[in-house]
Amino acid sequence: MNESNIDRHIANTEAFKRICASEPVLKAIASAIDVLPGMTPNTVLTSGPPMPWGDYTGGQRDAIIGGVLFEGLASNRDEAARKLAAGDIKVDGCHDYASVGSLAGIYTASMPVFVVENTAFGNVGYCNMYEGTNPRRLNYGVYDQGVRERLLFVQDIVAPMLKMALQLSGAIPLKPIIARALHMGDELHSRSTAASMLFTRELFPGLLDIPFEQREAVKQTLQALTEDHYFFLRLSMAAAKSIADAAHHIEGSSVVTAMAFNCRNFAIRVSGLGDQWFVGPHATVQAKLFEGHSEDEITWMGGESTITETIGLGGFAQAAAFALQQYQGGSPEAMMKRNLQMYEITIGEHPDYHIPSLGYRGTPTGIDIFRVLENGILPVMDIGIAGRDGGQIGAGIVSAPIECFELAAQAYRSRYQAIE
Amino acid sequence: MNESNIDRHIANTEAFKRICASEPVLKAIASAIDVLPGMTPNTVLTSGPPMPWGDYTGGQRDAIIGGVLFEGLASNRDEAARKLAAGDIKVDGCHDYASVGSLAGIYTASMPVFVVENTAFGNVGYCNMYEGTNPRRLNYGVYDQGVRERLLFVQDIVAPMLKMALQLSGAIPLKPIIARALHMGDELHSRSTAASMLFTRELFPGLLDIPFEQREAVKQTLQALTEDHYFFLRLSMAAAKSIADAAHHIEGSSVVTAMAFNCRNFAIRVSGLGDQWFVGPHATVQAKLFEGHSEDEITWMGGESTITETIGLGGFAQAAAFALQQYQGGSPEAMMKRNLQMYEITIGEHPDYHIPSLGYRGTPTGIDIFRVLENGILPVMDIGIAGRDGGQIGAGIVSAPIECFELAAQAYRSRYQAIE
Repeated sequence: MNESNIDRHIANTEAFKRICASEPVLKAIASAIDVLPGMTPNTVLTSGPPMPWGDYTGGQRDAIIGGVLFEGLASNRDEAARKLAAGDIKVDGCHDYASVGSLAGIYTASMPVFVVENTAFGNVGYCNMYEGTNPRRLNYGVYDQGVRERLLFVQDIVAPMLKMALQLSGAIPLKPIIARALHMGDELHSRSTAASMLFTRELFPGLLDIPFEQREAVKQTLQALTEDHYFFLRLSMAAAKSIADAAHHIEGSSVVTAMAFNCRNFAIRVSGLGDQWFVGPHATVQAKLFEGHSEDEITWMGGESTITETIGLGGFAQAAAFALQQYQGGSPEAMMKRNLQMYEITIGEHPDYHIPSLGYRGTPTGIDIFRVLENGILPVMDIGIAGRDGGQIGAGIVSAPIECFELAAQAYRSRYQAIE
Repeated sequence: MNESNIDRHIANTEAFKRICASEPVLKAIASAIDVLPGMTPNTVLTSGPPMPWGDYTGGQRDAIIGGVLFEGLASNRDEAARKLAAGDIKVDGCHDYASVGSLAGIYTASMPVFVVENTAFGNVGYCNMYEGTNPRRLNYGVYDQGVRERLLFVQDIVAPMLKMALQLSGAIPLKPIIARALHMGDELHSRSTAASMLFTRELFPGLLDIPFEQREAVKQTLQALTEDHYFFLRLSMAAAKSIADAAHHIEGSSVVTAMAFNCRNFAIRVSGLGDQWFVGPHATVQAKLFEGHSEDEITWMGGESTITETIGLGGFAQAAAFALQQYQGGSPEAMMKRNLQMYEITIGEHPDYHIPSLGYRGTPTGIDIFRVLENGILPVMDIGIAGRDGGQIGAGIVSAPIECFELAAQAYRSRYQAIE
């Protein structure tokens, strides 16, 4: 080991420490336009490294158009496509707006978002809200009357009730919820069942203080919070974004600070390599599809919920969530094995996030691009699977493509010749 | 195999089927005096095979006296002891009143109980309510001003709010809650964390409809429901009692329908052998004690929460609850191994209660005394550990004593000579 190796080690240790010391706290619920840095009324955000409008295809293209229509920026699909092509409506990547997108990841100006401050470092991460249990959702490339009504329900009922409850209850620290949910069968990406309930529990006092005449809206909100496994995901995503950003821009660090994909590519960002995306082909997937769907329907529409893996949750904590096997396939043994492999490519074990089935071992945290390459082990992620006709058709495990890590390592070598 | 073996097989299959087909539903909350069959104003119920008053010692004796004082049947300990000795106050076993006791298991006339009907068979099981997080509780042999205040809080705040919410929400089926909690890290005996939240979620609509001026009481109740891992235990106990009783009194069945202990003995009941208790010495224990306590403090005060193991939960589902290792000790590997052993002594695998870490295998259900003896494997139970000075001092795994099963087998042989 020479002096330069020590530098990378120190930089990566710092990145790891910042991830672990992060304290994500839900501070507010607000409209995207009011809080996302740089957001404008005619911007639509979407998942993955941003591309020119013409490069978006399939479900992700449909989802962007859906966002334009939902926001009232055009009155039909053709007009939307024309305005997008003309640049009258801007498409950009969520990550550059301190936010992360679920699947296609559409943000428009009026959408309510969670405002999660990493109080240990002062930066903020944002995420918009879960649309609900219908597999046909805007973030899965569908926009129709049903999707519109559900988005309005989230905007007009769920968000205002949560906002009111939050104002009455006070800010909610998310780290304790995440830590406890890991003991209750969640990995906080494809399964947030317990976390959603623990979050709801924190809101109880506030929800009870909402004026009695609004109790039907409160009941509908409680239903939305707990009806399936996904509500809290948007909070773990906002938390993870605020955590990953705190570890970004550390000179000399080879720790991954974002993994994301659009309809064409998978890509990563690295702490010490600025905001450049290192782009590779699509991830490889092992899926379990809902009844009536087949492998040839699987399509890519984007996704940034993989920010959770970036900070040691999701696929990196799958041995905490054996119940996932029913949803995304696999066996407990395979989940355990994959989870254990992640220790081979990470900097350390999280001091606060523990996996009971591994004897309370801390989750593998802080992906090092060089450990990925040296060990030939790829980061795994638990994701929802989109179908070519829109909608969710299943769930599965994906592995990041090696090319992203190779490109990042090249860039690292050229930037840090002296200290590799 | 001769004809007689087939009979036992048929009888045990019937017992197993009844356990699995049971549908425990929370129907009401009521005072013990109003619902427990045979309860009288001057009866105190306690855990384990009933004994003459003079035989109760230590914490269980103290707990009975505490019950007398709480109920106002005597004004001091000496008077209580005199009245108990004179038979003016009757001590009896919970199990004979369709109920089960947690630890010392004290029931007095005014205490609120859960009324759980097994709607598949029409019988009812009862259990009183969790006192709260303080390790010093009446059911752990302590009675002082703090314990009294907490019991009154349960009686005057928690029970009335739950009762009102239940009346507004309607009856709550418990089987779906138990089934889902097994996917969320509970085994429903020493860990009911998720079940408590799932139960609370069912009560939401009712709790929200309680008149607004009572919202402070509702908030306190929500806190009591979810503040730790134990609230739902009393519901799984009442459910388990209603389930086990449905499988009791099946002619020819060698399936265990109750496991219980008092301060002197461990004992079991067997479906085809009437209401006789087959009594052995204390169980053996592997404990993890709270900080500041030592092995020599461990004492026996009774316990009937082991009804949960009788129907395939608790220790028989411990591989669903790896988080328990922090509380009661052991490793995931040991928990898995012990859980798998229980399949060697049970009739079948529960079709609705699954263990995710075992690939969703059904929980081992219906303990057969002959399989216990043939395989030399003893039923294991997850229990709280009492200290000699009163209060909870830890938790652990106990194994039932072999003597109970030997005595039961003897009785079985003499009763069913023709069909062993």
